[in-house]
Amino acid sequence: MLDIALLGCGGMMPMPGRFLTSLFLRHNGRFALIDCGEGTQVSLRILGWGFKNIDVIMFTHFHADHITGLPGLLLTIGNSGRDEPLVLIGPKGLGVVVSGLTVVSREIPFELKIIEMEEATEFSIGDFMIKSLPLEHRTKCYAYSVTINRLAKFDLEAAAKLGVPKQMWSYLQRGEEVSHEGRTYTPDMVMGQARKGIKVAYCTDTRPVKSLPDFVRDADLFVCEGIYGDNDKIDKAREYKHMLFSEAARIAKEGEVNELWLTHYSPSLTKPEEFLYNATDIFSKTFLGFDRKNTTIKFEQEDIL
Amino acid sequence: MLDIALLGCGGMMPMPGRFLTSLFLRHNGRFALIDCGEGTQVSLRILGWGFKNIDVIMFTHFHADHITGLPGLLLTIGNSGRDEPLVLIGPKGLGVVVSGLTVVSREIPFELKIIEMEEATEFSIGDFMIKSLPLEHRTKCYAYSVTINRLAKFDLEAAAKLGVPKQMWSYLQRGEEVSHEGRTYTPDMVMGQARKGIKVAYCTDTRPVKSLPDFVRDADLFVCEGIYGDNDKIDKAREYKHMLFSEAARIAKEGEVNELWLTHYSPSLTKPEEFLYNATDIFSKTFLGFDRKNTTIKFEQEDIL
Repeated sequence: MLDIALLGCGGMMPMPGRFLTSLFLRHNGRFALIDCGEGTQVSLRILGWGFKNIDVIMFTHFHADHITGLPGLLLTIGNSGRDEPLVLIGPKGLGVVVSGLTVVSREIPFELKIIEMEEATEFSIGDFMIKSLPLEHRTKCYAYSVTINRLAKFDLEAAAKLGVPKQMWSYLQRGEEVSHEGRTYTPDMVMGQARKGIKVAYCTDTRPVKSLPDFVRDADLFVCEGIYGDNDKIDKAREYKHMLFSEAARIAKEGEVNELWLTHYSPSLTKPEEFLYNATDIFSKTFLGFDRKNTTIKFEQEDIL
Repeated sequence: MLDIALLGCGGMMPMPGRFLTSLFLRHNGRFALIDCGEGTQVSLRILGWGFKNIDVIMFTHFHADHITGLPGLLLTIGNSGRDEPLVLIGPKGLGVVVSGLTVVSREIPFELKIIEMEEATEFSIGDFMIKSLPLEHRTKCYAYSVTINRLAKFDLEAAAKLGVPKQMWSYLQRGEEVSHEGRTYTPDMVMGQARKGIKVAYCTDTRPVKSLPDFVRDADLFVCEGIYGDNDKIDKAREYKHMLFSEAARIAKEGEVNELWLTHYSPSLTKPEEFLYNATDIFSKTFLGFDRKNTTIKFEQEDIL
């Protein structure tokens, strides 16, 4: 299963009751974070899932509302007792930006592994299978998808029939070959078809990009910016390279995602609920993001093992 | 008169319901700010006094909890329409720190005037008469006092007796010489004795310093750190170069200030009220700071002009 929390739903500047857009993921006790604006660590503290086990922080881009919370968060992670390395992923220039921002937090008791992207890239950080996609904003910006893969189902009957000793089943399940009394067993002998994992996609700040529907395709959850709810604000959205509620909904529909959460509201959008219909008319399973809106997504039939 | 608001009362990291320690001053529609940690701009927005007219930001030192809110605040000030220069004052190294932190906010539509101090210094920014004092922390750190001077009282009787035309009174009051029908009038002819201004002192983070009582002497308000309330934590206070409630109170008493507000509580100090007696036993007019605790200090007899 994967726990997901939207730490904030605002864009541009932190507002009372509305922290900046950031997504937090938890799987098997390890965490991944996407974006970290001013105040993200406060929302994370209210959420109460902890700081120590954050293994990767992904940055969409370097506008202040997506990254200025980093130096404070790094110190707080340090205070939590972490000493393992922490991976930071972002567009080209991340090293320079991190070096600048951490001018006041040099004494972090763990290593920072900085990865700069120049194009769509894939990463594997623990169980988090990460993909990125270049977007169209006023600066280099990337969308991310995070997938938790699931092992194929173990065919108990086949294993019993072949006579594989039970203590060797877990090795086969993990994809390893085993030998017993002169016979060799390979995973394909006992593993069924691949099973669906859990996929979450996160996209802000951008104009709609042609490749987005395919990038988010079949996501269990798609978290997407909707800076304005009102369709009449399309000129402003185009000028500042952002998306309307309706544009996010069209991507969700075309990408056949399961559920869409809107986020990154303009400070001027004080009542996003008044415009939700502009999205639900296109994609009915659209929900308004709010600070610490969270959910748990299970693998299909996860309870029936 | 001078309006004063404590924007936060926490130290080390921003906590739910407790922003980082920062003081905001308003006089004649112009603002001065001391320290700007992560989230300071949110507290300022809740307070609602505005952003545009901040003319000076003073930094005590460069630990993250006192300065990482700067890049976000600068962008928000820019969004408010400001185009006048903004003065930043801090210890030596301020330029490098500001340059690092603003790596993500280079496009600010106003000039930054950076002033680095190497010793106790005096500044005059508009009506804000600022003094600094070196402290004893783990890094270079300064206390600040801000004084609003008051014009001497205008002697109406003397002015009438001398025959100075009424339309010239305001020039004399501002310290200018005037001439009328061949006669010259100087301010000393009509101005009474100097009158008491309003003084606020702000001190965090430090061990008690010998010169502090004189520095804060006769302040109408002394805002001072008290990282721990419990006197038993003196070893920890010494190790990390901070002050106890009782130590702040002794400075307030010795400096004969009018009122003391405690601030910069450790995140571990969840109930500062349980330890207030450790300060009030020494200095009875001690009050616990809290987010957006504010007051207005008037000149003596300000209503009787």
